Amino acid sequence: MRAGSAAKRLLVGRPLDSGRLGETLLPKRVALPIFCSDPLSSVAYATEEILLILALGGLAVLHLAWYAAVGIVILLLVVVASYRQTCYAYPGGGGAYVVSAENLGQTAALTAASALLIDYVMTVAVSVVSGVAAITSAVPSLDGHAVAMSVFFVAVLAWLNLRGVRESGRWFAVPTYAFIAVIYLMFAVAAVRMATGATIRAESADLPVEAVSTYSGIALVLLALRAFASGCTALTGVEAVSNGVPAFAKPKSRNAAMTLAIMGGLSVTMFFGITVLAMVYEVHVAEDPTELGLAPGTPTSTALAQIGRATFGDWHILFYALQAVTAGVLILAANTAFNGFPMLASVLGRDRYAPRQLFHRGDRLVYSNGIVLLALAAIVLIVAFDAQLTRLIQLYILGVFVSFTLSQAGMVKHWRRELATPAGAADRHNIHRRLAINAFGACLTAVVLVIVLITKFTHGAWIVVIAMPVLFAGMKGVRRHYDAVSAEVAVAPGQRPHALAENHVLVLVASVNAPSLRALSYAKTLHPASLTAVTVAEDPAEAEVLRATWEAHGIDVPLRVLSSPYRSIVQPVLRHVREAPERTGDAVISVVIPEYVVGHWWEQPLHNQSALRLKTRLLFMKNVVVIDVPYRLASARELAAERARAADAARAAEAAKAAGDAKRPGDGT
Amino acid sequence: MRAGSAAKRLLVGRPLDSGRLGETLLPKRVALPIFCSDPLSSVAYATEEILLILALGGLAVLHLAWYAAVGIVILLLVVVASYRQTCYAYPGGGGAYVVSAENLGQTAALTAASALLIDYVMTVAVSVVSGVAAITSAVPSLDGHAVAMSVFFVAVLAWLNLRGVRESGRWFAVPTYAFIAVIYLMFAVAAVRMATGATIRAESADLPVEAVSTYSGIALVLLALRAFASGCTALTGVEAVSNGVPAFAKPKSRNAAMTLAIMGGLSVTMFFGITVLAMVYEVHVAEDPTELGLAPGTPTSTALAQIGRATFGDWHILFYALQAVTAGVLILAANTAFNGFPMLASVLGRDRYAPRQLFHRGDRLVYSNGIVLLALAAIVLIVAFDAQLTRLIQLYILGVFVSFTLSQAGMVKHWRRELATPAGAADRHNIHRRLAINAFGACLTAVVLVIVLITKFTHGAWIVVIAMPVLFAGMKGVRRHYDAVSAEVAVAPGQRPHALAENHVLVLVASVNAPSLRALSYAKTLHPASLTAVTVAEDPAEAEVLRATWEAHGIDVPLRVLSSPYRSIVQPVLRHVREAPERTGDAVISVVIPEYVVGHWWEQPLHNQSALRLKTRLLFMKNVVVIDVPYRLASARELAAERARAADAARAAEAAKAAGDAKRPGDGT
Repeated sequence: MRAGSAAKRLLVGRPLDSGRLGETLLPKRVALPIFCSDPLSSVAYATEEILLILALGGLAVLHLAWYAAVGIVILLLVVVASYRQTCYAYPGGGGAYVVSAENLGQTAALTAASALLIDYVMTVAVSVVSGVAAITSAVPSLDGHAVAMSVFFVAVLAWLNLRGVRESGRWFAVPTYAFIAVIYLMFAVAAVRMATGATIRAESADLPVEAVSTYSGIALVLLALRAFASGCTALTGVEAVSNGVPAFAKPKSRNAAMTLAIMGGLSVTMFFGITVLAMVYEVHVAEDPTELGLAPGTPTSTALAQIGRATFGDWHILFYALQAVTAGVLILAANTAFNGFPMLASVLGRDRYAPRQLFHRGDRLVYSNGIVLLALAAIVLIVAFDAQLTRLIQLYILGVFVSFTLSQAGMVKHWRRELATPAGAADRHNIHRRLAINAFGACLTAVVLVIVLITKFTHGAWIVVIAMPVLFAGMKGVRRHYDAVSAEVAVAPGQRPHALAENHVLVLVASVNAPSLRALSYAKTLHPASLTAVTVAEDPAEAEVLRATWEAHGIDVPLRVLSSPYRSIVQPVLRHVREAPERTGDAVISVVIPEYVVGHWWEQPLHNQSALRLKTRLLFMKNVVVIDVPYRLASARELAAERARAADAARAAEAAKAAGDAKRPGDGT
Repeated sequence: MRAGSAAKRLLVGRPLDSGRLGETLLPKRVALPIFCSDPLSSVAYATEEILLILALGGLAVLHLAWYAAVGIVILLLVVVASYRQTCYAYPGGGGAYVVSAENLGQTAALTAASALLIDYVMTVAVSVVSGVAAITSAVPSLDGHAVAMSVFFVAVLAWLNLRGVRESGRWFAVPTYAFIAVIYLMFAVAAVRMATGATIRAESADLPVEAVSTYSGIALVLLALRAFASGCTALTGVEAVSNGVPAFAKPKSRNAAMTLAIMGGLSVTMFFGITVLAMVYEVHVAEDPTELGLAPGTPTSTALAQIGRATFGDWHILFYALQAVTAGVLILAANTAFNGFPMLASVLGRDRYAPRQLFHRGDRLVYSNGIVLLALAAIVLIVAFDAQLTRLIQLYILGVFVSFTLSQAGMVKHWRRELATPAGAADRHNIHRRLAINAFGACLTAVVLVIVLITKFTHGAWIVVIAMPVLFAGMKGVRRHYDAVSAEVAVAPGQRPHALAENHVLVLVASVNAPSLRALSYAKTLHPASLTAVTVAEDPAEAEVLRATWEAHGIDVPLRVLSSPYRSIVQPVLRHVREAPERTGDAVISVVIPEYVVGHWWEQPLHNQSALRLKTRLLFMKNVVVIDVPYRLASARELAAERARAADAARAAEAAKAAGDAKRPGDGT
């Protein structure tokens, strides 16, 4: 990928100096869409998920949706209240991982981390897929391309996020606010029309809802609880705000808590409003159209789409606007995860529970690796589940409530410690209040966790139940590996390098040309104990030709020809080195490989393939060192020159920009 | 991919000595299924494709299928006759590329090559997809997983072929012969039943065929020609036999020609038989079920499935057998391409029109790279076209007839040259006959090519019309690149290497540990003009810690700390080297990178990420050399030991096997 970074520069723009990190702080109006598009958008399908489950019980049990909805509203308010406390307690970012780590220890923290990682991936998959569903239900001709479209949108999101959080903030504000506006407009229209005596009914109101089986007693309770659990999708993503406190403009904690409150208010009203309309309009939905007495494969609209069509009636333009903004906000909801996941990944990287490069910041002040990783995981999931929302949603929620419970429990521990410290004594009353809120939140979310586990286990949640320990073990394993390595490479105090006894140099040559001569020249400057040229010949004739040229040029380096019975360049060289007698205790064999350096990515596969494979194998051998002597072809020299110019230009630009920023310190906050 | 080759060994078995290549020669009975499963299996859909096109014209025009079928039979006989000549003329393998290259020059050859490459990919895609269609039409519940299943089968085929041609021969014989047997059995049953007075009709016989539009005059002729063109799928893959002559057992040419004749006989009878039954049973098919007066989305069976069901009536077991073997042979038909494509790719690699590594044989005496490339291309195509046969098939055929025409034309040139030589004078009559056959073949295929182009262009063939020149240009470009490079690296006679003036060494260190010390030790053995240790610090504190340890250890190498404003390890080092004054005319800077070598693939991403990116960038700089000093961690040392043992074992096994073969020389032929 020689040209990769040039392309990267083009795509994600010039790097930012970390001194200018402050510039990317977010005002509330920008933070809301970035961190809350997930919980806000989930109202688009939460109601439907409740009705879908209850539909299994037939018309008779649909009224249970009221109870489920009320339960979810209460839960939402409690969770928001709890997380507001976290924002104040952890201005540095209080994700479930951090809170659990500080208060409940590493095991709890890693459990929370695995739960969160899974749910970030699920958020991307579920949001994008349901967004695409909104599109296809408005434009049926696109049906059947769901997978391709979903993958495309995930890729676009990844790309936007690689460009940096601030830009994305701008991009994402519009659809989120548009969604909120259209939903409330819909409520207003519905209210006015009904007030003026109109009776609005959904297109599906007259369809029968045939019970799959009759539920009563425990079964009925379980069904109701399962409906409730499915509706809890409305709560996903609350985590993101408390996690992202440091990204908020000052006063960080206050702004974050405020944003949470606003989000809570919006979610509750929109979710409840939609549910009310769904019940009043008698929206009937079912996973399988036959349950509604329709022919198999008959396309059915989403609950929200039905409500919209019923409400706006002949004002088709408004209906399409609704579908458009719904699709938009749902796809962007995935962005919440694109902000949360990389942050968490980098924290895990810092604590060495994940590869270090996740901790290392990319050029553009975002955790590029985490973003790419998340996008890939989501794409795999979407393809594997064939972009079917109903199947994906079963894997959702579980992780959310694991992290909810852990982080609330952690907060309880936190406040109790506060109480112990005299500092805390100042406003014990205040702390007691916070403690109470978090304690209640912890209990409630714990109960819901159990409900989700029981009601969704057989419907797919078991996958998560397996995946979480796997992730957990994986992270433990990574940490163990890093610890083992650093122990292994540790040196006794005062130990210092010493020159090795002998350095025997082998130069690989294919023919007598500039790169080979260059490599030989370099080898001579190493003052080696011995210097040999090595070549691999598939047939003797080839070997003879080379030997002849070698002598014609009068090259004063002995040429060793290796025959290749397996038609492989790599094996003979490996065998030769493996069996070399020089590779003794304190001596070393340096293998010099002349490498063709080309300037265009498409030239890359045309060269050095064997050399690459050879290198990776040689590095395994005791007392072997690999030396790349590059021979830069014309195209590479051009690219190098370009890069040098680009580097200078960038530096100049940075300087100019920095000067500019000095004049406008308030910029961007 | 340190563990890659271990896995590879496990998957594709131990390498073969090229001396034992003879062992993989194929007897006719094995060659037939390997090289002919494509043309044989295409009879499974050729008839249906004819009917599908004619259905557009409604019931009235279905009888035109007779003319199309007869035309195709004649064409098939002519093409087979033509290619038999090629087998005799080119015992070394007479693919369209070779024949065109020798007789019509490079432009024609590359045109043929691009046509062939495209059609090999198409063969894999079309065959596998239609095979999967046969499965889903027998097991409707699998419907909707077509893409996943197709991709899976392509992957399996690639894997089998990586194991080597001979094994695959064995694997592929059974279904091919089973298919032939079941088809003829079906004919027999049909004959007997009808002879005994039964009137057999297809399930769709009573369905109306509603004309999409009424065709008459030119339009009708074009429709008939388009039907004919679609039916020509029956001819695909004839190429493979003449291409694979060297893989046949001696007498190669004769066996190949014979195999072609047998294939021709089987194809003609099976194709015509199926068409007859389709007409007699009045099988009605249409791309869109509504044309048959059915509800949209109604699942319809393939023509062959309908014939089978009608013929075997209540003997359901036989019907399912038919579907099973059809699916089997269709999926294996793709194997024809897996044999042809890599051979062609390697010839192109040899002539430097494709990357060299395609020429280079893999461990297992098959062109691994070509196989992998083909599989990937086919998968992309299958996913892109959503595994829809009717859309894929439009891209088919065109390339086939381009290569047919070119190779026949080339043969004409060939025979005329033969006539010119006195050697040929011996049996001029014979040569005249061959010349006539090829001349007729060339004309006929040329005419068909025009028909295909006209009738299919707007239906997707235009994609191929664009793709072929692109491939052509690509291959030209590769050749130009290789020529340019070899010109660029050529050296004047008598030129020889000379020691460079100075070698300044930089050692990258992150902390004072064994790998760093090892790297420093090695650096000292290079007798450098200057030796400096370089480190990158994200913050001053970090730097101070390192400097302190450095002094505590009393390391006698100056330590240079680079600050990292962009939180990147790579950029500061690049800048430092770029601005180093030592990089003058004849001096060189050697950058020593301590590399962690780990034994497990999953440990790989945990290390060296920055080092890798750094290396690829440094190689671009003038007078810079990169030195990898590996530090092998415990896991790597184990793996290395394993490999050494494995290598010894393999060598021993080879020796033993060789001895065994000496005893049974006839083995495998």
